[in-house]
Amino acid sequence: MIKVGIVAYGIIPFTRDEQKIESILLKSAKNLFDNNPEINRDDIDAILVSTNNNSKYLAPILSEMVGIQPKIAHSIESLCNSGTNSIVSAYSYIASGLADMILISGAERNDSPGQILEWDNSRGEFKHPIFWASIFTKSYKRKFSISDEQLAMVSVKNHKQAKENPNALSQKTFTIRDVMNSKKLTDDIRMLDCSRPCTGSASILLASEKMAKKITDSSVWITGIGQKTTSAGFTKNTSFSSMESTKIAGYAALKMANHNIREIDVVEVHDAFSVCEPMALESLGFSKSGGGTSMIKELYETNNFKINPRGGLIGSGHPFGATGIAQTIEITQQLQSKAKNRQVDNAKIGLVHNMSAAATSSTVLILEK
Amino acid sequence: MIKVGIVAYGIIPFTRDEQKIESILLKSAKNLFDNNPEINRDDIDAILVSTNNNSKYLAPILSEMVGIQPKIAHSIESLCNSGTNSIVSAYSYIASGLADMILISGAERNDSPGQILEWDNSRGEFKHPIFWASIFTKSYKRKFSISDEQLAMVSVKNHKQAKENPNALSQKTFTIRDVMNSKKLTDDIRMLDCSRPCTGSASILLASEKMAKKITDSSVWITGIGQKTTSAGFTKNTSFSSMESTKIAGYAALKMANHNIREIDVVEVHDAFSVCEPMALESLGFSKSGGGTSMIKELYETNNFKINPRGGLIGSGHPFGATGIAQTIEITQQLQSKAKNRQVDNAKIGLVHNMSAAATSSTVLILEK
Repeated sequence: MIKVGIVAYGIIPFTRDEQKIESILLKSAKNLFDNNPEINRDDIDAILVSTNNNSKYLAPILSEMVGIQPKIAHSIESLCNSGTNSIVSAYSYIASGLADMILISGAERNDSPGQILEWDNSRGEFKHPIFWASIFTKSYKRKFSISDEQLAMVSVKNHKQAKENPNALSQKTFTIRDVMNSKKLTDDIRMLDCSRPCTGSASILLASEKMAKKITDSSVWITGIGQKTTSAGFTKNTSFSSMESTKIAGYAALKMANHNIREIDVVEVHDAFSVCEPMALESLGFSKSGGGTSMIKELYETNNFKINPRGGLIGSGHPFGATGIAQTIEITQQLQSKAKNRQVDNAKIGLVHNMSAAATSSTVLILEK
Repeated sequence: MIKVGIVAYGIIPFTRDEQKIESILLKSAKNLFDNNPEINRDDIDAILVSTNNNSKYLAPILSEMVGIQPKIAHSIESLCNSGTNSIVSAYSYIASGLADMILISGAERNDSPGQILEWDNSRGEFKHPIFWASIFTKSYKRKFSISDEQLAMVSVKNHKQAKENPNALSQKTFTIRDVMNSKKLTDDIRMLDCSRPCTGSASILLASEKMAKKITDSSVWITGIGQKTTSAGFTKNTSFSSMESTKIAGYAALKMANHNIREIDVVEVHDAFSVCEPMALESLGFSKSGGGTSMIKELYETNNFKINPRGGLIGSGHPFGATGIAQTIEITQQLQSKAKNRQVDNAKIGLVHNMSAAATSSTVLILEK
């Protein structure tokens, strides 16, 4: 099969600003081209836009704005993991031979319509994501005898790491006491346990091995892909203390890459809420069930940025359509040893975990230098 | 490369009814499964939804409704050619080996938000599609000395053919006089020159050769694919009397399939307005420039259903996200000799042409038995 590599990327600071979706998309694409003047735009034969925004025809619009006339141009939506869905779609266009080089641009505004899944009546009146997160948190705490303070460490760690990420929404650090004292939204969730929707954009350029080698000698390769949708409705989840779609996607990605979880050096997991980080780590196999928070505490205390080096969704902000792409850019920078103060030592193999709607669907990617 | 075949399809009558988008999607998928009980749903590893609807997470929702837990699930939007963009994406997943069998369901409501491209300020206040169609019509008539009556024949032919299509929105026939006497919307466009947005859904199942052969011995194969986006804004078109994106996509699709245009037996072209049919036929190479209307008249007079046998968009209605899939189903039925009163004699090779936004983007598919 044709190898597919990440050859360039562009990203802008995540904010709470009001901007047009077309402008935000253009900004990260422009950042990509500004940083990589050696790229011939005529070689780009597909543009995919990842977003929950309701504007139509955004991929041809972006194409026109950046001066490209691609073969393939369309938008992709799957709530919070639209970004990695778009990356996998681009992978398949290249691996099948239909395209050689593809620009994927993800963008969202802070008023994204993807915040509430209206269809899911299994949630009753409690349609805001904090309600499924609250049930996950209660269930996880009860099953593994975990305290609110242990979960608060996720937010403390990720805010600390976000401070080293110039594009992160948050640039503040917090103590466990700060998290515990932040506004209580439900019995089990406090304000600082939540990632925040925001305005942001991230772009990434994928290419076939042949094309990639013309552009750079530091491509990062996508060697493993796993995806799974178990349901759309929250209450169809068979567990509220682990992520079934993540387990299946993680297993498939590692199998495809021919690696085991102990070989992974650096990881982006989808910490939409504090509880999601240990649950995702456990479902991926980094820790035994219920052991995620101990692992997180140890990493924090040893100043090890292995998990969510850019600050995760909690520290970086969560512009839905851009999140999976921003996660993939972070792992790419880590494997290229370009992550500056966030750099994880000797990072050779990385993993991206991106999910939607109470982990009813997940994507896992394995990246290698 | 892995061969990709169409192994099943489902479609519902196109109407002006008010229905929930989730219900419409489910109906054509259910029709597909009802008509093909031999399909094991567990073998379906991706579900793609083609729509302009603003509802989110529709692919996982459809997955849950039909009882499938796919690997890949997301929505695709590219205005009026979302359907064929989805088919090509599915093709690439299968050809790359990431999936073996994919359900693609397209659906739209008659109040689709894809009717107006708000972004395109090059249209000034004239954002409704009838305005670009009006400029196309004026330009085409002037350049090739074509009369309103000659263009009206497109509508006469397509309404006649739609009468043999049980799923068509229109079941009436009209004379050239009827078209000429229908409400004048602009200097050059009358009501019966227009396709109408409507409520509709169409589903298609694609499979790898290995999987296809387990299910049916009458698969139709996708042997040629061409896609091109020249711009998003209407006024960037370099011609208003031909379709540049269609020329490029058509050439690429025929080249990939190793055929020439004279070998094509049956054709679906995107007749959003009367003028689009001769323009598309000319841009695809079926006729010399300006010769499309003569070809259409001759086919009508000899009762030859070769062009738009199901009645085109003008006769069938135009539920944007479903249109490209419905077109592909029609050609599949023709190649399988299952098109009943619409059947074109000895149809061995077919072509689908689907486009968006004043032909600023086009997809062309070549299908073979």
